[in-house]
Amino acid sequence: MNGAKSAAQLLTATNVRALFDSVDAFLFDCDGVIWKGDKLIDGVLQTLEMLRSKGKKLVFVTNNSTQSRRQFADKFQSFGVPVSQDEIFSSSFAAAMYLKVNNFPPEKKVYAIGGEGIIEELQLAGYTGLGGPADGDKRAEWKSNCLFEHDKSVGAVVVGLDPNINYYKLQYGTLCIRENPGCLFIATNRDAVGHMTDLQEWPGAGCMVAAICGSTEREPIVVGKPSTFLMEFLLKKFQLSTSRMCMVGDRLDTDILFGQNAGCKTLLVLSGVTTQSILEDPSNSIQPDFYASKVSDVLELLGE
Amino acid sequence: MNGAKSAAQLLTATNVRALFDSVDAFLFDCDGVIWKGDKLIDGVLQTLEMLRSKGKKLVFVTNNSTQSRRQFADKFQSFGVPVSQDEIFSSSFAAAMYLKVNNFPPEKKVYAIGGEGIIEELQLAGYTGLGGPADGDKRAEWKSNCLFEHDKSVGAVVVGLDPNINYYKLQYGTLCIRENPGCLFIATNRDAVGHMTDLQEWPGAGCMVAAICGSTEREPIVVGKPSTFLMEFLLKKFQLSTSRMCMVGDRLDTDILFGQNAGCKTLLVLSGVTTQSILEDPSNSIQPDFYASKVSDVLELLGE
Repeated sequence: MNGAKSAAQLLTATNVRALFDSVDAFLFDCDGVIWKGDKLIDGVLQTLEMLRSKGKKLVFVTNNSTQSRRQFADKFQSFGVPVSQDEIFSSSFAAAMYLKVNNFPPEKKVYAIGGEGIIEELQLAGYTGLGGPADGDKRAEWKSNCLFEHDKSVGAVVVGLDPNINYYKLQYGTLCIRENPGCLFIATNRDAVGHMTDLQEWPGAGCMVAAICGSTEREPIVVGKPSTFLMEFLLKKFQLSTSRMCMVGDRLDTDILFGQNAGCKTLLVLSGVTTQSILEDPSNSIQPDFYASKVSDVLELLGE
Repeated sequence: MNGAKSAAQLLTATNVRALFDSVDAFLFDCDGVIWKGDKLIDGVLQTLEMLRSKGKKLVFVTNNSTQSRRQFADKFQSFGVPVSQDEIFSSSFAAAMYLKVNNFPPEKKVYAIGGEGIIEELQLAGYTGLGGPADGDKRAEWKSNCLFEHDKSVGAVVVGLDPNINYYKLQYGTLCIRENPGCLFIATNRDAVGHMTDLQEWPGAGCMVAAICGSTEREPIVVGKPSTFLMEFLLKKFQLSTSRMCMVGDRLDTDILFGQNAGCKTLLVLSGVTTQSILEDPSNSIQPDFYASKVSDVLELLGE
């Protein structure tokens, strides 16, 4: 499409039916859309139930790499929302699938800067993950003639959000990328900040990824949103057409861009990081098709 | 100067005298030029003594921010090389001087991601430095409804090499820059890696600086090499002319570029990170005036 994207329309009782009828699947971001921190957003349960009852396919696409699909399914379960692992596409899973799709040799190892989710998804895909939480308390010895030994069989470094980031991990990842021939540098995502609590935005995976860019002078392969890697995967699995999908998210530069890059319809919800004034600011060039205050507006406006 | 810089000349018995006679001051980088890790490079003591005896001014300009000028003077002392604090210009000192020159209000505080050197130079300049080594063991509480409190009077964040980097510090610096109106973001330097040991290159300040760029989506003010901020300071202090100076360093993108940016003559020594093949690689666009294997080649070639 050439020219400027027209301004987002507020979702109303008049336009909601056309959106609803034109899509077979709804793709949801999780944080700021389904939940905020550890609180489910009002009306989500009822909205998802209604969508399922009308035969819509539901998919959850999250850039949060600290957890595995199994852990996300447990989180949905704890809210009383029935979601299966197969419906969840996390950036931790995306990292493992990127290696799989690209025939990364199973005898090579993967060094992870990030949480348990990356390690678990690597293992499920048949790979050996090093680092992650296990290296949280390690320290690089900082003295002369000290050789920092790293595993020469590491063929990929996966970097995601790491609440226990330290110099040891940065050093390990840096040496693998700089010294192991052909070593891949994979970022789960590059979100600058995220709502780790409902009160504040804290540094996101973009912080750790940038640190490794700084020390390696390399740019990563990004597998999370807004990269369309996950979408290609999802399409193969579910035999859907992107033009019959609607991506629902709270972030313009990841969720909405991801949806647009893939050719989906897009719905911005204002229950997360994006406010109406950010959306309408002249400096913002990313316009979703529709916006609403929260997911359950769809339920209310349809009057189902 | 327009057009390509001509290729560096090897320093020889024929051209060394002209270089020597054309300069009044020699500016030295330290790591990889004067010492490597905690070992003095051969012939440095004798070369510096000869230069002083011939009336040359000596200045030491280092991007290493982990130590203060006092600590660097102690390091020279430990090698038996007499150097005074006044002859040392470190990036930790540069950060404090940048604030001073720009009339940073003394009632505002400065948050430091880095070593003791930054905190000490801030104090000497009359500022209150928070963070640094004191925050090395702190952890951000990672739970819902948790508010991370940061000091609203922080008006600048200084980021340098930090062997004890952690999420708490990244979070603190990020919140100050994102939430305190007008908060400055100062980088001591952006070296990707450095010879923390003589055996390996480890992540440098460029790693921590990039991390904060990633989470704040801001670019820093760089005060160390190749920025010419320190040079302006040095010129005021010593009343020298840059055309009568020679910058001696082991790095093309910091030392040699710094010298060239300031209009100095430049001498690359191959005793640090740069090899002759890097210098001669077609992808390298930074050509010093001269290159030599090490500092003491000047002494030997002059036959003094």
